[in-house]
Amino acid sequence: MSNPSLLILAGDGIGPEVMNEVKKIIGWYGEKRDLAFDVEEDLVGGAAYDAHGTPLTDATMERAQNADAVLLGAVGGPKYDTLDFSVKPERGLLRLRKEMDLFSNLRPAQCFDALADFSSLKREVVAGLDIMIVRELTSGVYFGEPRGIHKEGNERVGINTQRYTESEIARVARSAFELARRRNNKVCSMEKANVMESGVLWRQVVTEIHEAEYPDVELSHMYADAGAMQLCRWPKQFDVIVTDNLFGDLLSDAAAMLTGSLGMLPSASLGAPMANGRPKALYEPVHGSAPDIAGQGKANPIACILSFAMALRYSFDNGDEATRLEQAVEKVLADGKRTADLLGPEGGTPISTAEMGDAIIAAL
Amino acid sequence: MSNPSLLILAGDGIGPEVMNEVKKIIGWYGEKRDLAFDVEEDLVGGAAYDAHGTPLTDATMERAQNADAVLLGAVGGPKYDTLDFSVKPERGLLRLRKEMDLFSNLRPAQCFDALADFSSLKREVVAGLDIMIVRELTSGVYFGEPRGIHKEGNERVGINTQRYTESEIARVARSAFELARRRNNKVCSMEKANVMESGVLWRQVVTEIHEAEYPDVELSHMYADAGAMQLCRWPKQFDVIVTDNLFGDLLSDAAAMLTGSLGMLPSASLGAPMANGRPKALYEPVHGSAPDIAGQGKANPIACILSFAMALRYSFDNGDEATRLEQAVEKVLADGKRTADLLGPEGGTPISTAEMGDAIIAAL
Ligand SMILES: CC(C)[C@H](C(=O)O)[C@@H](O)C(=O)O
Ligand SMILES: CC(C)[C@H](C(=O)O)[C@@H](O)C(=O)O
Repeated sequence: MSNPSLLILAGDGIGPEVMNEVKKIIGWYGEKRDLAFDVEEDLVGGAAYDAHGTPLTDATMERAQNADAVLLGAVGGPKYDTLDFSVKPERGLLRLRKEMDLFSNLRPAQCFDALADFSSLKREVVAGLDIMIVRELTSGVYFGEPRGIHKEGNERVGINTQRYTESEIARVARSAFELARRRNNKVCSMEKANVMESGVLWRQVVTEIHEAEYPDVELSHMYADAGAMQLCRWPKQFDVIVTDNLFGDLLSDAAAMLTGSLGMLPSASLGAPMANGRPKALYEPVHGSAPDIAGQGKANPIACILSFAMALRYSFDNGDEATRLEQAVEKVLADGKRTADLLGPEGGTPISTAEMGDAIIAAL
Repeated sequence: MSNPSLLILAGDGIGPEVMNEVKKIIGWYGEKRDLAFDVEEDLVGGAAYDAHGTPLTDATMERAQNADAVLLGAVGGPKYDTLDFSVKPERGLLRLRKEMDLFSNLRPAQCFDALADFSSLKREVVAGLDIMIVRELTSGVYFGEPRGIHKEGNERVGINTQRYTESEIARVARSAFELARRRNNKVCSMEKANVMESGVLWRQVVTEIHEAEYPDVELSHMYADAGAMQLCRWPKQFDVIVTDNLFGDLLSDAAAMLTGSLGMLPSASLGAPMANGRPKALYEPVHGSAPDIAGQGKANPIACILSFAMALRYSFDNGDEATRLEQAVEKVLADGKRTADLLGPEGGTPISTAEMGDAIIAAL
């Protein structure tokens, strides 16, 4: 049997340098744990635009479709700000999500104990926090038609369409309920059913799936604005949150920031099972391309490394090795090793991106 | 000349009891400061539905159109959760906003010094915080057509439309720039121009208005997800934030919660000038109807009272009296007077809704 295949799309900004550390770790697994991967690399985002005039070529798209898992670094940067909407770096990422049909975006918001004081929130509010936001990723206002800017009389008008079908809601709801069963068995669904009919349908379908298939899981509903409030007030009240593409974008970013561990947080985007039983999958850090520090060896590779840990767990059914890798990260942090972004106001001496990667390998 | 007219719509839940304290304060102004108002009262939300089967009658709508300012308490409650979308309490409020064309919703996120420890954020992150979120209130996905739930084949599909015209964006941008000039001269505009064309147009129009009319104001742009993060990380970086209806809903609620002063925060919703030069205007607290404590005399009336202070400032051009009222509130807090929601974990003896109103009048 051949090795499972990984497609690495390092992308822009700090993407390549944090991905470099992941490659070292993949190498370690092949050598030391007999867990070898066939790794290919390709371009996405601004890097692909620079080379090919498009943020994702058809050839790369096809390689992604055929890979057992895709690892992505980050896309975007000020250099591309003035590009036309259709070729912006982000379109490459959105095309991957859409064409691979990665409908379930898992975003853990977790507070690493060694970093709890790093949050803008009080220690007691975030210490030990471990929630999972499940964001619908292939529909909603990101993809709905009609969309665009056109003229009406003398005026420009900008339009996007929020659109959800019953089955789109049902499948992401199921993935949230499944996850909850393996965690603390609680799901909170967020929408604006008080002002949007798409939210009314969302609430109905989540409720129906719950009653028919997951009555054992505790389900609650919250308006998304109240949800944003409650995340800021007392995030530990949540276990799994399920929400749509746009609300998920804002709420998961806010939650990530609240943990104080933004440079640490991974994500998994999962689709339907392929012929080999593995889900279509893309793994990426929650943080962006951080153009201001790119190329300086300062970036924190942990979010990208933990994204690979999620790949071990969700694509390669190897929860044990995922946990081993996560524990190695925690050990390195407990030992006081810090990249520049993890230094508090007290300062200290930062280690480089590569040193952090090496330290994690040593801890493995 | 006749007195200016106020229409009071107390609404549901704690609405009537907090509004009661505002009425006392209006009475005080008439008696002691020679600032008399002609006050009318009417129903909105669930209260209107119970009486008339609609959350806002045409007659009430007309009274609101003719009032110099409308004061609203709160709408909604679990009793109305199962009502059809078209007669939900919220529709009454949305109809007022839309038909009065109240396009500029001013939501101060302010941290009262006496309450800084009450925030889930660290004191240094919120102490002294004073930002203003300007939310577009009459357009976007709240009102765009087509909308609704329909069948496609065997499936239900929920649709809403995000739609912004150039002039809708321009007028709310102007109101944000005007406010900034009277504050710290900085505006940050938030959208998702990286994924939504309506956001691309938003950014373009804000930039154009800035260049043509307000080049003296400092303008920056942020994606709304990054904006949510930055609000949680270091809110003091902002002065005025301008954003659309839906993003404004989430971001202003999160910001309000972060201040620790949620029960304290007022809002103003302003439209175009009427024949008498006053803007169409509706004032309401940011908090909701809090059905769990309604009718118990526990609610904090300060947000509603400060909404009346905003009315003095924005509708009646009486910034001096507005400041006097705001200072009275601060004094009462500094004296240690607390409604139940303002007691920290250390406890203490709460005063009632009415006692808080009386204390503020005494401080006036
Ligand atoms: C880069 C951008 C297109 C993306 C999004 O809006 O989904 C990002 O913010 C994210 O959350 O992954
Ligand atoms: C009550 C509801 C319709 C309203 C909104 O969504 O605008 C509320 O959340 C607000 O922010 O004023």
